[in-house]
Amino acid sequence: MNNFQFWSPTEFIFGKGTENETGKYVKKHGGSKVLLHYGGGSAERSGLLGRVRASLEGCGIKYVELGGVKPNPRDTLVYEGIDVCRREGIDFILAVGGGSVIDSAKAIAMGVPYDGDFWDFYTIKDPDEALPVGTVLTIAAAGSEGSGDSVITKEDGGLKRGAGSDVLRPRFSILDPELTCTLPAYQTACGATDIMAHVFERYFTNTKEVEITDRLCEAVLLTMIRETPIAVAQPDNYDARANIMWAGMVAHNNIVGVGREQDWNSHGIEHELSALYDCAHGAGLAVIMPAWMEYVCKHDAARFAQVAVRVWGCQMDYFDPEKTAREGIKRFRSFLHSIGMPINFAELGAKEEDIPKLVEKFGLGGGETGGFVHLTSADIAEIYKIAAKAQL
Amino acid sequence: MNNFQFWSPTEFIFGKGTENETGKYVKKHGGSKVLLHYGGGSAERSGLLGRVRASLEGCGIKYVELGGVKPNPRDTLVYEGIDVCRREGIDFILAVGGGSVIDSAKAIAMGVPYDGDFWDFYTIKDPDEALPVGTVLTIAAAGSEGSGDSVITKEDGGLKRGAGSDVLRPRFSILDPELTCTLPAYQTACGATDIMAHVFERYFTNTKEVEITDRLCEAVLLTMIRETPIAVAQPDNYDARANIMWAGMVAHNNIVGVGREQDWNSHGIEHELSALYDCAHGAGLAVIMPAWMEYVCKHDAARFAQVAVRVWGCQMDYFDPEKTAREGIKRFRSFLHSIGMPINFAELGAKEEDIPKLVEKFGLGGGETGGFVHLTSADIAEIYKIAAKAQL
Repeated sequence: MNNFQFWSPTEFIFGKGTENETGKYVKKHGGSKVLLHYGGGSAERSGLLGRVRASLEGCGIKYVELGGVKPNPRDTLVYEGIDVCRREGIDFILAVGGGSVIDSAKAIAMGVPYDGDFWDFYTIKDPDEALPVGTVLTIAAAGSEGSGDSVITKEDGGLKRGAGSDVLRPRFSILDPELTCTLPAYQTACGATDIMAHVFERYFTNTKEVEITDRLCEAVLLTMIRETPIAVAQPDNYDARANIMWAGMVAHNNIVGVGREQDWNSHGIEHELSALYDCAHGAGLAVIMPAWMEYVCKHDAARFAQVAVRVWGCQMDYFDPEKTAREGIKRFRSFLHSIGMPINFAELGAKEEDIPKLVEKFGLGGGETGGFVHLTSADIAEIYKIAAKAQL
Repeated sequence: MNNFQFWSPTEFIFGKGTENETGKYVKKHGGSKVLLHYGGGSAERSGLLGRVRASLEGCGIKYVELGGVKPNPRDTLVYEGIDVCRREGIDFILAVGGGSVIDSAKAIAMGVPYDGDFWDFYTIKDPDEALPVGTVLTIAAAGSEGSGDSVITKEDGGLKRGAGSDVLRPRFSILDPELTCTLPAYQTACGATDIMAHVFERYFTNTKEVEITDRLCEAVLLTMIRETPIAVAQPDNYDARANIMWAGMVAHNNIVGVGREQDWNSHGIEHELSALYDCAHGAGLAVIMPAWMEYVCKHDAARFAQVAVRVWGCQMDYFDPEKTAREGIKRFRSFLHSIGMPINFAELGAKEEDIPKLVEKFGLGGGETGGFVHLTSADIAEIYKIAAKAQL
């Protein structure tokens, strides 16, 4: 096991009706004038924003609103948010929405106290400070409610890049599973795929003897395999929604990833898809992740066999572990298909002829990217090709 | 799943040599004058205290020392610590040791700003505030390095009672697995038993549909089953020590227990044993926990069968789940025996004729205690009797 530092200071308030306590927690965590940040109309139509506003007002907290966050959130709205916060003397940012809204809120939070361009934190440096952020989560997927990560897309050129620092971890996050009961099956499945991908990116490691985090990863995956089909078939099943919502936090606050090298190449390879086609991140991952697994499986067939047996219930072939490993990947793809996810480019709406463009945007040039298996541009192209043609 | 609040704001610094950074983290978390709190001579002899002192001095942090914490830490030393802190203007308490030292530090931390008797927090009320506490952990067992709990024994009468509040959670905890490589096999096994008990106390619940926390509990148990025999046989196996040390934190900061009713009667029943005989808490749990399981198993055989299959590798008897359930309990007791733990009163050094005294000290009178199964004094006596006579 490697040395590590782990700090997850977010206060989580979980369960039915907890959004009505938003004001209390903003106050507890030092907010007096809030930027209320959200996305499109669904939070308004559902009455959620109304309940959050009422809770803020009930606690005497002033707020300024900034809606309009889109999936794959853009730098342009972040610049606008930074201006609003400076002009209005905002001291706390409250994100009401899913990962996109929270990521946008974190970008604004870093940008406000920074003299330079906030995009620096997505390209060349880490932030030293940020305004405090709180969240009211509406989609179980990104895990941004408990993480120190943020992903933003540059409108000009479609570059999608990530920033990460403990200063970005939310001060509090309110998780009411009932808010996710209205999510359509497709979005539910996209979120579940993202959650499972967050685990797999940590699971495939070259670090030896990390049994505790291996087992915690498997715990989240087994939960998702049990609960996702329930939530897809019965959208208003509260317990399935609750298990998935908490699993989504656990999958990405890094408690399942400490002490080990991690990969994250599938996320990088997927980001080019969602940046180019504006498809859902989870749908892109459903196409990319099994393809990446097939491409790198030989590197450590024992690790792939372990997850095949422990998570996918495969019988171990003691004489041919790679066979077991590949059976596990096959079951993962079948599972994704069963919950309604695309499994190849055609189903995603991507085009095989765009592969050279995707590889170029990935930006390795003649270099390589690190991780479980180091990848060159040629490797990335091969993974896109496997993804393009994949079948059950 | 039940509504819950979860806040684990402790910063964890994990790995080889991390104790040399103690001063830096005291400073980061606001300490300028420290009470350096520890136990007996082993932390001195090993050179650990010397390294911690050097680290504090290197950061210009003043400190006053208070050693002498005993296993099953006493109220008498807590009163002394409170006096020292008030007299010396201490603003941060640094515990260097295992659960006893950390629990004593937390008691002092609550007592300093409180006008009344600190024992109130162990009997009639919760604390509103406490001095900040940091820890340098030397034994993987109690999980106090990440929890908001503290257990103290009243010298006069031997009453052992617990306090709990998020204000008691350490600001930082330094976990260097190498510090545990000198622990004898017996203490290692006692610690492992305590860690597993912390999981089981959460696992046996009447709350339905808590798959994520079930799975996380099982992850910790499976890790302990793999790693404990390695650490017992090869005390200086770093990776086994590292997996156990982190599992010990995960087992008790409540990430594996949120959203569900918990039990904790085995801990209560054991506390009377360690209070009366001053035996190791883990050894007492090894005797009590399987006995408790046998006594309550019928209440929810399906839940016991689940852990038997998922954790102990039993074959499910679909026609007689209770048979599988009991086979799992048997394997748990065999496992405890295999790592050198006592499994009955004789092996622990307890006496069957003391059972009436133990039951009386438990203090239920004609009432009952809640949990997975509600227990009366007569039930407690039966559990002690099963524990007294238990065999493999």
